[in-house]
Amino acid sequence: MRDASASPPRAGVHALAAPYLLFLGDATERGFAKTALGLRDWAADKCLAEHALPAATISAGLPPMTPEAAAAAGARSMVIGVANRGGVIPAAWMPELLAAIAAGLDLVAGLHTRLGDIPALRDAALRAGTRLIDVREPPSALPIATGARRTGRRLLTVGTDCALGKKYTALAIARGLHARGQDVAFRASGQTGIMIAGEGIAIDAVVADFAAGAAELLSPDASPTHLDVIEGQGSLFHPSYAAVSLALLHGSQPDLFVVCHQPTRAQILGSPGYRVPLIEAVIQQTIAVGRLTNPAIRCAGVSLNTAGMTEGEGATEIARTAERLGLPTADPIRGGDAFERLLDACAA
Amino acid sequence: MRDASASPPRAGVHALAAPYLLFLGDATERGFAKTALGLRDWAADKCLAEHALPAATISAGLPPMTPEAAAAAGARSMVIGVANRGGVIPAAWMPELLAAIAAGLDLVAGLHTRLGDIPALRDAALRAGTRLIDVREPPSALPIATGARRTGRRLLTVGTDCALGKKYTALAIARGLHARGQDVAFRASGQTGIMIAGEGIAIDAVVADFAAGAAELLSPDASPTHLDVIEGQGSLFHPSYAAVSLALLHGSQPDLFVVCHQPTRAQILGSPGYRVPLIEAVIQQTIAVGRLTNPAIRCAGVSLNTAGMTEGEGATEIARTAERLGLPTADPIRGGDAFERLLDACAA
Repeated sequence: MRDASASPPRAGVHALAAPYLLFLGDATERGFAKTALGLRDWAADKCLAEHALPAATISAGLPPMTPEAAAAAGARSMVIGVANRGGVIPAAWMPELLAAIAAGLDLVAGLHTRLGDIPALRDAALRAGTRLIDVREPPSALPIATGARRTGRRLLTVGTDCALGKKYTALAIARGLHARGQDVAFRASGQTGIMIAGEGIAIDAVVADFAAGAAELLSPDASPTHLDVIEGQGSLFHPSYAAVSLALLHGSQPDLFVVCHQPTRAQILGSPGYRVPLIEAVIQQTIAVGRLTNPAIRCAGVSLNTAGMTEGEGATEIARTAERLGLPTADPIRGGDAFERLLDACAA
Repeated sequence: MRDASASPPRAGVHALAAPYLLFLGDATERGFAKTALGLRDWAADKCLAEHALPAATISAGLPPMTPEAAAAAGARSMVIGVANRGGVIPAAWMPELLAAIAAGLDLVAGLHTRLGDIPALRDAALRAGTRLIDVREPPSALPIATGARRTGRRLLTVGTDCALGKKYTALAIARGLHARGQDVAFRASGQTGIMIAGEGIAIDAVVADFAAGAAELLSPDASPTHLDVIEGQGSLFHPSYAAVSLALLHGSQPDLFVVCHQPTRAQILGSPGYRVPLIEAVIQQTIAVGRLTNPAIRCAGVSLNTAGMTEGEGATEIARTAERLGLPTADPIRGGDAFERLLDACAA
């Protein structure tokens, strides 16, 4: 997978400085520490240590270090790896955030509250010469998409709905192909993905006119054998977010896409009355609209999120779906031969 | 057509105060005064007078008045009806803009430079208690789209490309149906349309995540016989702007759409290598994606922009297209029986 520190950051794309100190705040529920746990799982090489308040009861399993100690050990950023209800920054965190800045670390967050809107942090960062990076904040001066074809190959994960494994699938495919020795990069289009990759653009936070342009910027020209595996967003069948999905599809101009689906989900998230579409419908629609910017677009396979199914139920669902569609189908979390066949199709 | 002054403005939608004094600056080319001329043609009841610098050579045909005189005669806003290269505000305009503020008028613009970013204007407006309204600036606190069906009926103009008559067509249909006594409102999704309607949202300036939500806000619940005629944006076949078009389509959940097309245009604007699609393809795609939020969506007819064709060529193209598609087809600028048949279909 692509190591951001190995190449100069591209204009307009967030570029985070690794290694990270993961800040766990006062978290007592694993659900609120998903970002930290995702970083530990997918960007272990970027994670040096963790730092928590005494009230915290969870750990990412990394060595505990104060910001000062982490900076001395080489850390370059402290990443806020926890969310809390409302996405605000509680007063109890402030001394730790200020300590990180004083230690010379960049502060990185993907919360609703912007770090740069908190005067005490802004002033401290100005004094210390460090950066406050809100990864949901899009870069300034984004281009309008041109639709011009770029060199290299691209794969996009698309979904039957939101929040069912598009990021996880893209990361698993990128990691799997990297392990096979392929020239591959994960391209992040959302906040946690950006922290994992060390760079990227939160496409849903970009002004609509520039969203496809941002997606073009995200996966630039590359060598003919290089594959960008691009994290998808939303769903063409989601009444709130389909425009985000379309901008990402058109700007990514993918050669291949993988449909991500959760068999146990019947209703579209947050939109009562909207049913999750059939995988077949997503394939057909993705090709129908995606061929505008890449006439050769095709479906490489299906990623099923079988969380909440038993081992046997999941295996049956995977086998049935593969047979019904005639496409490689796997749950990346289960892995196994099915996932190797999906990787074969992505590498083809 | 809807008169914004007759009903309280809706939360989150720009609400301009009429009547307007049209500011023509120092314009010497009609092309740069398109906004003023559009306002004169489509919002004559809102246009009280015009004001130009001595260097100007063009006129909108309205009585000339200074800001002071216009305010005394009842004007409530001065609308910058001219653009210049680069979209900036030249120094020569400043005394007139300050005079308008001093006279108690709101200042309204749709330029790239935001009025609120010019300290002298901001300070003057604060002192005078008047508003600086940048109509391209989206309202704050827009909602995420819900996809919930709304009451009333809706028609959206869609295009084979950008900038070929979607606003004009929507205005002509709304005016034509209003003349027939129908309960109809024009809904503006772009800057000039907003000035004409007195309210609206520039959808392309909204953050992608909220674009469909903004479109939902634009055409709210209405009585069962009411028809909103919504100004379209971009094209589903434009590689830069299709996401804007899709957000507007999903959020508008139109019952009917009219395809706008310019027969003399072969290439998509600004995207070399992209051909203007067939009208048939636009109909099929609009239904394929639009049925997500309104399963009953259908095409009411076609609006052809025959500018640049002779009278005879235009008439032949209109007749041929109508026959080929089996749909009412007209050029609203030509009007005539063909346009009345298109209005019949929009009223049905």
